[in-house]
Amino acid sequence: MPHGKQFTLYTDVGGPNGWKVAYFLSELGLTYKSIYLDLDKKEQKSPEFLKLNPNGRIPAIIDHLNNDFVLWESNAILLYLVERYDKDHKYSAATDAEKAIQNQWLFFQASGQGPYFGQWTWFTFRHAEKVPSALERYYKETERVFGVLNDVLSKQEWLVGDKMTIADISFIPWNNGAFSFILGPDYPVAESFPAVYKWHNAMVSRPAIKSLIDARQALQKH
Amino acid sequence: MPHGKQFTLYTDVGGPNGWKVAYFLSELGLTYKSIYLDLDKKEQKSPEFLKLNPNGRIPAIIDHLNNDFVLWESNAILLYLVERYDKDHKYSAATDAEKAIQNQWLFFQASGQGPYFGQWTWFTFRHAEKVPSALERYYKETERVFGVLNDVLSKQEWLVGDKMTIADISFIPWNNGAFSFILGPDYPVAESFPAVYKWHNAMVSRPAIKSLIDARQALQKH
Repeated sequence: MPHGKQFTLYTDVGGPNGWKVAYFLSELGLTYKSIYLDLDKKEQKSPEFLKLNPNGRIPAIIDHLNNDFVLWESNAILLYLVERYDKDHKYSAATDAEKAIQNQWLFFQASGQGPYFGQWTWFTFRHAEKVPSALERYYKETERVFGVLNDVLSKQEWLVGDKMTIADISFIPWNNGAFSFILGPDYPVAESFPAVYKWHNAMVSRPAIKSLIDARQALQKH
Repeated sequence: MPHGKQFTLYTDVGGPNGWKVAYFLSELGLTYKSIYLDLDKKEQKSPEFLKLNPNGRIPAIIDHLNNDFVLWESNAILLYLVERYDKDHKYSAATDAEKAIQNQWLFFQASGQGPYFGQWTWFTFRHAEKVPSALERYYKETERVFGVLNDVLSKQEWLVGDKMTIADISFIPWNNGAFSFILGPDYPVAESFPAVYKWHNAMVSRPAIKSLIDARQALQKH
């Protein structure tokens, strides 16, 4: 590890999935060097990066504490980090039943939140033509996903057990993106999804996570 | 369990994700009763089903061998089944490193294959207007995903270790859907993605899986 940190994190400034991993590494107190790929320049499709991740997407990590073990897919990385570096289950389920529920929510985030929110972004910023009916589809799906979360979080404070786990953390950057862009700053999140609002704010006010959200905003200004 | 089977599987005939779970329960030799919800009638949004799965999607299982434990998200169900019923790791990774890689591929399937292939289906069969540029996007993404898998499977027979695991199984029904509908029967899969073709055929020729693919085709004729 020539940079002296415990992990190398391949990520980008704009995309949400790399920030999940950064938030959690910081919460765990592990050190990492972030390498920000320029997706507009297709650096995620470079031969060097494809050797790490044949899918050509961020994030990917190299764990210098574990013989330079390489892993990609953000939620798989969160699970790897708890297996190896959260033995006391400070941020993760401890029983088999809760581990199954934790996986359930991680897969819901990965398959139900990320891709639908991501399609809104695609059709807003990258698609060659304007397709209002597609934007409407993904806007409604964003509201639906927050509705599902709000129903559940009205009855319990966290998605799994009685503490914040990686299942909750996985939603943070996509929530932020939805509030800022898809629903937009005028959307009454606190009134429409009060339990989601409380849950999300409890997470983003944690010092380790807040400082990274601030750091991201500073990076985006450049 | 009034029906006498070990599991209840809430699923539907047309969607791929319920079949993943059926394939794997059959491979494990576990018994289950499939309850096919009629998605056109929105049975997946009924109050009774939402009590099992607040996300209102199939599949969901009830494990009658484990105090009627309820779980949803197909890949979380596969992981639950191996933790509990594949202690010898006949279909699953045994080491921490291989478990991490297994999770990586399960998340790639859930976030990279399923949603993109699913958007093609949406824009083809359900969207209110025709959007050729959207279909083109998801067609190309389907080819890209098979390209990623083909590169990897050109160098190794299975995604994790030296045997078929749940990571491989998770791709079967979506592969089938892509070959039949997105790429279509005239697409030269064997020529364009030879390693994928070999891998997929090795799985679908297994008796437990083949008999369910036949059963599904029979159900779809009604």
